[in-house]
Amino acid sequence: MAASPDAKRQKSSQGKDVPYQLIYWPGIPGRGEHVRLALEEAGAAYTDTAQDGSGGMEAVTAQISDSNLGDDRNPPPFAPPILRHGEGEDALVVWQTANILAYLGPRLGLVPDALEDPDGAYRVAALAMTALDGLSDEVHDCHHPVASGLYYEDQKEESLRRSKDFVQNRLPKFLAYFERVLAGKASGDGPWLYGGRLTYADLVLFQCLDGLRFMFRKAMRWAEHSGKYTHVFDLHDAVKMRPRIKAYLDSKRRQEYSMGIYRYYPELDLGDEM
Amino acid sequence: MAASPDAKRQKSSQGKDVPYQLIYWPGIPGRGEHVRLALEEAGAAYTDTAQDGSGGMEAVTAQISDSNLGDDRNPPPFAPPILRHGEGEDALVVWQTANILAYLGPRLGLVPDALEDPDGAYRVAALAMTALDGLSDEVHDCHHPVASGLYYEDQKEESLRRSKDFVQNRLPKFLAYFERVLAGKASGDGPWLYGGRLTYADLVLFQCLDGLRFMFRKAMRWAEHSGKYTHVFDLHDAVKMRPRIKAYLDSKRRQEYSMGIYRYYPELDLGDEM
Repeated sequence: MAASPDAKRQKSSQGKDVPYQLIYWPGIPGRGEHVRLALEEAGAAYTDTAQDGSGGMEAVTAQISDSNLGDDRNPPPFAPPILRHGEGEDALVVWQTANILAYLGPRLGLVPDALEDPDGAYRVAALAMTALDGLSDEVHDCHHPVASGLYYEDQKEESLRRSKDFVQNRLPKFLAYFERVLAGKASGDGPWLYGGRLTYADLVLFQCLDGLRFMFRKAMRWAEHSGKYTHVFDLHDAVKMRPRIKAYLDSKRRQEYSMGIYRYYPELDLGDEM
Repeated sequence: MAASPDAKRQKSSQGKDVPYQLIYWPGIPGRGEHVRLALEEAGAAYTDTAQDGSGGMEAVTAQISDSNLGDDRNPPPFAPPILRHGEGEDALVVWQTANILAYLGPRLGLVPDALEDPDGAYRVAALAMTALDGLSDEVHDCHHPVASGLYYEDQKEESLRRSKDFVQNRLPKFLAYFERVLAGKASGDGPWLYGGRLTYADLVLFQCLDGLRFMFRKAMRWAEHSGKYTHVFDLHDAVKMRPRIKAYLDSKRRQEYSMGIYRYYPELDLGDEM
């Protein structure tokens, strides 16, 4: 399973033949879901603080506490998702969703083989980061445009303005972009974004589309029925039918959307009048 | 200079013994500045569309045009900064600031040596991404909280609300976080964020602090004089005194802040009353 990109990293992975540890808030899929989908698709062994009962909140809070100065090798993480891998002195503590995926990609076989396509991992990373920026971070700001520390109820007017712009301008821009990526030669054969094979960028785009379908139901229905983004929606369906992904989505490990990035507010579910 | 992390990449770099090509909007330092600082610190050969006279705008527009489907190996880039490296079939076109820096890091010697510290690059990436998220992307949203496609003048009220939250809550949170990183053991000796040596994360944090000093003058003056973030400001000064960085900052290649991420609006320059 551990398809490390080079001998050194394989060597370092030898001391890391232990389950991956995902440290994330319980109760929402959130950004942690991108990490989970990669681990699930690869059939990797991992623990997840969101699944450990009541301890999840404390596990995250301890990591991001003002008194955490990290350890001899690892700086303190800023925010979850956090991945811990390895034990003792060799343990890596790493954060930022895109960075965790860049670390996992070669280990889980979710980027092209580094011998055949040494630059492939950077192309996959660029695609994944673009989806995370546009279809996750920008979506969060649709219900929190003023301040992430304020309640939605305290920024409802601004949220409506921002959501209108997102649905009218940003969402079509990103969907059209990924449709264009899928039409390009570098995507190769089949439904995937890069190189004719599943990479973690496909998993990221799937999760973004899935969340968008929950939050912006009308706009996403319109987008699908418009016929403009058939490759994008085909990719969504192809990921969903991967045997391990399907089993995961059907399991209790897959949490429901609630008060995370993708939220359903009827007043923000724009589309009919557009 | 090209300190590639593994044999395969060194092999691939052999066909890339050509200048790096930065494709970015002319007229603002913007996100392209993070790429420039890395290239300048390393003394690397590069071209820059922002310095090529009137052609810069066209070069960027061609890359992100709706008709660009990429090439056989490279998907179309979504947005600048874009880095092109290599020629012919081996050319890599890569985008997303953090991803460009992850590509350049080992090549320019701006991450720890992969043999000595195979996980170091991921720690550096996490630190750089945290600065880019919190002290660059969130700052952009201070003057564009509703829509990046609207003028500031059309979202002034929301900008004031968002800027107040940024200055009161987010800025101190990020400054305190990096102060904590610098107090931790993993930062090693000297003024740097990780491993006792300069990495591209230091350059990123420098550029963010420099831009913040332009945009939020009062708040940054207060932050510096508070004595709470002495290590953070020492890092800023240490980067500024690097011989190649100093020469770059004194050169015409260093563009002035204008209408990019870091903008000076007196009404958003909060601090006196806080």
